[in-house]
Parts: sequence; C-alpha cells; structure tokens
Amino acid sequence: MGTSTGDTVTDGVAVPDWRKLEATELTPILSAALDAFYETGFHGTSVREIARRVGVTVPALYYHHENKEGLLIALLELSTSDVLSRAHAADADGGDDPVQRLSNVIEAIVLRMTLRARLAALEGESRYLSPDNRQRYRAVRKGVEQLVRSIVEEGTASGVFDVDDPAETTRALLGMCQSIPRWYHSEGTLTPEEVAAKYVDITLKTVGAPSRR
Amino acid sequence: MGTSTGDTVTDGVAVPDWRKLEATELTPILSAALDAFYETGFHGTSVREIARRVGVTVPALYYHHENKEGLLIALLELSTSDVLSRAHAADADGGDDPVQRLSNVIEAIVLRMTLRARLAALEGESRYLSPDNRQRYRAVRKGVEQLVRSIVEEGTASGVFDVDDPAETTRALLGMCQSIPRWYHSEGTLTPEEVAAKYVDITLKTVGAPSRR
Repeated sequence: MGTSTGDTVTDGVAVPDWRKLEATELTPILSAALDAFYETGFHGTSVREIARRVGVTVPALYYHHENKEGLLIALLELSTSDVLSRAHAADADGGDDPVQRLSNVIEAIVLRMTLRARLAALEGESRYLSPDNRQRYRAVRKGVEQLVRSIVEEGTASGVFDVDDPAETTRALLGMCQSIPRWYHSEGTLTPEEVAAKYVDITLKTVGAPSRR
Repeated sequence: MGTSTGDTVTDGVAVPDWRKLEATELTPILSAALDAFYETGFHGTSVREIARRVGVTVPALYYHHENKEGLLIALLELSTSDVLSRAHAADADGGDDPVQRLSNVIEAIVLRMTLRARLAALEGESRYLSPDNRQRYRAVRKGVEQLVRSIVEEGTASGVFDVDDPAETTRALLGMCQSIPRWYHSEGTLTPEEVAAKYVDITLKTVGAPSRR
C-alpha cells in the first residue's frame, strides 16, 4: 500500500513520514495524566493523584496547567492535531487516486489507533469537557471527518467508488477505526501494520472499490 | 427490510418482536446508577451519590447490590443479554438468507445503539471491571460477535458475500455500530430507523452483497 519510503514533499513543504510514529512526545505531567485518565477516567482522577504520579507538588502542576480539564483538553488536542496532520500527509502521498488516498488515510488512522491506543482511547472522555472546550475540540476532530468525506465524495463522483451516502459511510469508516482501541492489545497476534492492511481492505470493500491485492 | 410485523415463532417458542424496544425496565437504583455512570464515569461516581439520586440510604442500596462494581456489572449484563436475545431473534427472522439475516441483525443492533444510547455507551466503562467480572462480561458480549461472524462466514462460503477475512470484517461492522452512541442524539435529524437503514446498506456493501433496494 503506497510507495513512500521517507519524507514526502507536498507543495515544496517537507512533511514527516506519516507511517512513522515515534515515542509520544508528552511532558511528564501529560504522560502521567494520560495514564491516570486511562486507568480511572477523567472524573475518577484527581489533580493530586497526577501530581503524585509525576512527583511534583500540586501548585507546580497548576503552574503548567490551569486545572484538570486543562490537562484533558491538552491531551485531546495534541492527539487530534497529530492524527489530522498525519492524515493530510497520507492523503497528499496518494496523489490524485481516490483509492490510494483513502487507503493511505485509513492506514494512517489505524496505525495511530494501534500504536497510540491509550491516547486514542481518551477520545471517549471528551464528553466530559465543558461546552466551550468540547466545541473547540470537535472542530479539530471534524477535520479528519471532512478529509475522509471529501475523498469518498470525489471517488464516488468520478465513479471509482460506489457509495450511496458519503457522509454516513465516512462516519461508519471512522467508527470502525475508533473502536480498535477497545480490542487491540500490543501483545496480541496482529501487528499494527497487519491491522492497518486489513482495515484498508475492508474500507475498499465498503466504498465498492476494487481491492489493490 | 424484513417482513416481521409482530412476534416471531422460532422452534415453537414465541420471541418478542426484536424491532420493538419498550422503555428500559431498570429498577430505580439501576436507572440512577446508569445516569451517574454516564455523567461522571464509573470511577467518578460514588455509591453515596447513586443513593442520593434514587432517594434511598446507602445501606438500603447495599441490600440490593454488593458494591459499585455490582451495579456496573448488572447494567452491562442486562444490556448485553438484551442485545444478544434481540440479535438472535432478528437472525431467526431472516430465515436461510444470509443477506436478510445480516440485515436484520445489524438493524437490531443499530436500533438498540440509538434507542438505548446511554446504556450502549456504558460499554466503554467495562474496562474498569475486575478481571473476573470482565471475563464473564466479555463471554456474553462474544455471543453477538459469534452470531454476526457465523452469518458472514456462511454467506461467504455460499458465495453470496465477498469477504476476505470474516473475523476482522465482523469486528469492523460491530465497531462501526458501537461508535454510534458517540455521535447519535435523539434530537438529531435522523430517526433510529433511518440510521439503521443506512447502516444495513453500508454493511451489505462491506460484505460485498447486493443492496436490497
């Protein structure tokens, strides 16, 4: 799937290889917050507990983050911006071909869902955000949906895909990717690359495109 | 989709109409626990808060349920048993036709995801169960997966479906259904029946079956 072996150059701007996920670059505080939110949920975690995990005082933590919701929104925005930029790089790497573009974008999303399962699972906590923050967060997340939808629509318009309802099909495709953190475990039998390849195949079936293999 | 207008008789046993979802029959305690878990998560909810919502004392609550986890497992088991029995009834109602069987089962699952969004969303809290309870719960949930998978496998074997990997395709189909509570709101523009019809169409595309319409 795809031909990229290194960095991609799009419109003269070098974008990092969307297939490579380095170790998450989280600050110690955000890393501790992520672990705590994952283990006991947003409402089940106290700022005191996060400070304890990272070995700082509560005032020191408040120096960096306004409150507990500030930590959640920081993690969610970091996560969503990351997937959005990777998805755009993967799309650009697919050139003009809707099949390759959609394959790349789904591959990028699934790689992130498997390699960043803990961060991806945090998405479920977004319903606890205050209305303002929830709206801001959803606007960023909407970017991924709009990208996938535009590819599905263009592929359908050009007759490469056979889709009745591009908007709902997009939501279904993203939904199946979003559910991956519920069952994927890094100790399992499938590598992230194998899961990605399977979901690309299933995606191409869903949009009525011929499989690449 | 389907021809059932009332109860279905399978092997001489009458099963209730799988398309009809009556008001949830939850006890006041379970109903209050569901609301609290939805609003603040399992770890963010205290037994005291649930007792307060339902207007009973904490000891009275403990008379009915061993502890907070007992409330979560009761809700999850009730929810999963309900979807399992509906899915089996929907399957039976499809006769020998894999297309109709799969259409019915997906319709049953999506109707539940939309009409019981709050209960369905609770699934995400299952990762907080203790290992024993989690294993027991997953065994029941596995029943739905096995049913869908068996239909996908039979349809593929008989050449009605075109699926490379029935197990993964099943997981993807259930994943897209499980994601519905994340975006579905009863105040939205789509009725549960409309969402179900769309997801049946998308499912049939995904398994490479001709659409019914």
